Amino acid sequence: MTDAAFPPARSPLTLAQGLIRCPSVTPSEGGALAYLAGILGRAGFAVERPVFSEAGTPDVENLYARIGTGPCLLFAGHTDVVPPGDAAAWRHDPFGGTVEGSELFGRGAVDMKGGIACMLAAVLAFLERRGPDFGGAIAFLITGDEEGPAVNGTVKLLDWAKARGERFAHCLLGEPTNPDTLGEMIKIGRRGSLTGDLAVHGVQGHVAYPHRAENPIPGLLRLAQGLLATPLDAGTAHFDASNLEFTTMDVGNPATNVIPAEARATFNIRFNDLWTPETLAAELHDRLAAAAGNTVRYSLDLRPTNSVAFLTRPDAFVETVTDAIEAETGLRPALSTTGGTSDARFIKDACPVIEFGLVGQTMHQIDERVAVADLDRLAAIYGRVLDGYFPDAAAMPDRA
Amino acid sequence: MTDAAFPPARSPLTLAQGLIRCPSVTPSEGGALAYLAGILGRAGFAVERPVFSEAGTPDVENLYARIGTGPCLLFAGHTDVVPPGDAAAWRHDPFGGTVEGSELFGRGAVDMKGGIACMLAAVLAFLERRGPDFGGAIAFLITGDEEGPAVNGTVKLLDWAKARGERFAHCLLGEPTNPDTLGEMIKIGRRGSLTGDLAVHGVQGHVAYPHRAENPIPGLLRLAQGLLATPLDAGTAHFDASNLEFTTMDVGNPATNVIPAEARATFNIRFNDLWTPETLAAELHDRLAAAAGNTVRYSLDLRPTNSVAFLTRPDAFVETVTDAIEAETGLRPALSTTGGTSDARFIKDACPVIEFGLVGQTMHQIDERVAVADLDRLAAIYGRVLDGYFPDAAAMPDRA
Repeated sequence: MTDAAFPPARSPLTLAQGLIRCPSVTPSEGGALAYLAGILGRAGFAVERPVFSEAGTPDVENLYARIGTGPCLLFAGHTDVVPPGDAAAWRHDPFGGTVEGSELFGRGAVDMKGGIACMLAAVLAFLERRGPDFGGAIAFLITGDEEGPAVNGTVKLLDWAKARGERFAHCLLGEPTNPDTLGEMIKIGRRGSLTGDLAVHGVQGHVAYPHRAENPIPGLLRLAQGLLATPLDAGTAHFDASNLEFTTMDVGNPATNVIPAEARATFNIRFNDLWTPETLAAELHDRLAAAAGNTVRYSLDLRPTNSVAFLTRPDAFVETVTDAIEAETGLRPALSTTGGTSDARFIKDACPVIEFGLVGQTMHQIDERVAVADLDRLAAIYGRVLDGYFPDAAAMPDRA
Repeated sequence: MTDAAFPPARSPLTLAQGLIRCPSVTPSEGGALAYLAGILGRAGFAVERPVFSEAGTPDVENLYARIGTGPCLLFAGHTDVVPPGDAAAWRHDPFGGTVEGSELFGRGAVDMKGGIACMLAAVLAFLERRGPDFGGAIAFLITGDEEGPAVNGTVKLLDWAKARGERFAHCLLGEPTNPDTLGEMIKIGRRGSLTGDLAVHGVQGHVAYPHRAENPIPGLLRLAQGLLATPLDAGTAHFDASNLEFTTMDVGNPATNVIPAEARATFNIRFNDLWTPETLAAELHDRLAAAAGNTVRYSLDLRPTNSVAFLTRPDAFVETVTDAIEAETGLRPALSTTGGTSDARFIKDACPVIEFGLVGQTMHQIDERVAVADLDRLAAIYGRVLDGYFPDAAAMPDRA
């Protein structure tokens, strides 16, 4: 597929530039959702713009649009972006949408206004080819609160859609999933995340009289060793091994002649489908109790988490996306569950979800940018997914 | 010996009250040295009041007084006190010198205005008994900078005295040395103190991509284990085992999804006469190198120390003090080297020094206080030390 597949006004580049030029740093909508709403409305979508609120967080605008009837393929994503940082350090205005050579520069170029532009271009071209009676439904679920607190975004938008009776067959989330080259990697699941705060309690005293004090630091070393000594698991068919990292360890005692009263540490676990937060909690408590014996007094607080491990088992939908990628790039993508969390962890409760988008290398960085050729290729891939997902009955040989 | 040994105006209680009523919180002289100077001057001492200065620290007043010729017994101590803290929490004005029941209340009651009052009372009574030609010399070396930076105090006072040609045969330092009961414990030496700052260097990164980062916390755990695993020694004839305590461990990373770049820890070692700061440094570097192997990148900074282990070997002087204590209290004191550092670590370079004073239980606390009977007993002990140190030739049977 070539550039010619998209009329200039609906090319992925034009659409991405239109979105980048809206300064939609979370929680500001910045005109990005209005821009989408206008285009989708003109294309025949029923467009809604729900705004969600919660005490202590800013109100956030969101967008939901749907066209057609029958099994619904959902495109999901976000138009909000992280701040540009030092705008003067950019080669081009982070909200300018400038093309230099073969690349488009701007905040959101890959994460993920570029991805949304490709979805939009593919859907517009698909509807032009097939008309509104293509044998199913297409929806867009776009939030303005993915990079922020993520409280007034996808979670509430899914609840809102569910309450309206909206149902989805499959979801394609357009986050950047490729480490280096477009087509390398689909995400078919994500690890879960659990954070724990560990405190060891001692007795303060003078360093010259250690027998009258109880130093909590050796106890913390012991507990930390107990947590780290044995790997949690060796990985599973689709997941890396679960991993525990201590992210901080703090006492905050400036006096070198004082034994402190308490030592604290925080760790984060990225866990695979062998675990739930509950089974992990039990394992952590077992390990700590064994390491502490009768000598270390400690407490463990596990922070609430909405991030559990999930997997969209490879099926016909994954096959459709994989085939589309291979047809456009020649690459057979890895089916991965690596990396951080994404809104897929919420969507997975509504329908099977997989993620495929641009190359993530420059996301969140100064000079975030995307190859214009990648925009065209990704739109073409999404186009092939649509064709594969909604086969043209009229064009099928056995119906001829 | 009873109260009758001291005329009311020169009783240890009256002198201690006089000193406590001078609010001499470091670095303020508060009238305490002037009070001492007046009494010593009237008793025939040559009194000097050197003031020492150093950039970055407050000027501090000190006192040196001497009487007699020949072998000089030095009484050492400090009139400065730590702040009273919340004065309203005290049962009596911390600078009031109030007697309630059998106890004298006030900041410095045991640390160590009480001790200085006992020295003074004992010396005044001794001079009254024996006159100025008692066959030797007595000196007072009193600083106003023991509880503060300790820069413009005993160290400079000793240098100043040395430059003037002052020489000392022995020193008795009146810091509180008894844990519970007067007479339990003499200090005949002190452990040294060495502080080290350890840093482990890693590479910051996202917690979901640990292979792209290098978490310094497990490395710090390893190094800490390496330092703690084997005791430094098992103690010596007069010293407890050397001891290493981690006093703090800090990363300061609030982000639970970030692997930090560096982890830091500080430890303090109290070491005995098997070690010098130099041999300890070599041992620490050996242990860290062994624990680090080729995988942990770290740095160790040892802070400069003026606190080395020292021992005043038990001799006739120690025997004189021990006998005096036993005669007054019935207790044979332990010859100890436990506890924190004191100015004895500086005096030991001028002459053999031992420490004996009041019961330290309430030092630095709210409601610091001393039993009035202990003041009388300690003054009587010091009096016996003087009599033993300067035997009265005229009173000896073989001279009769």
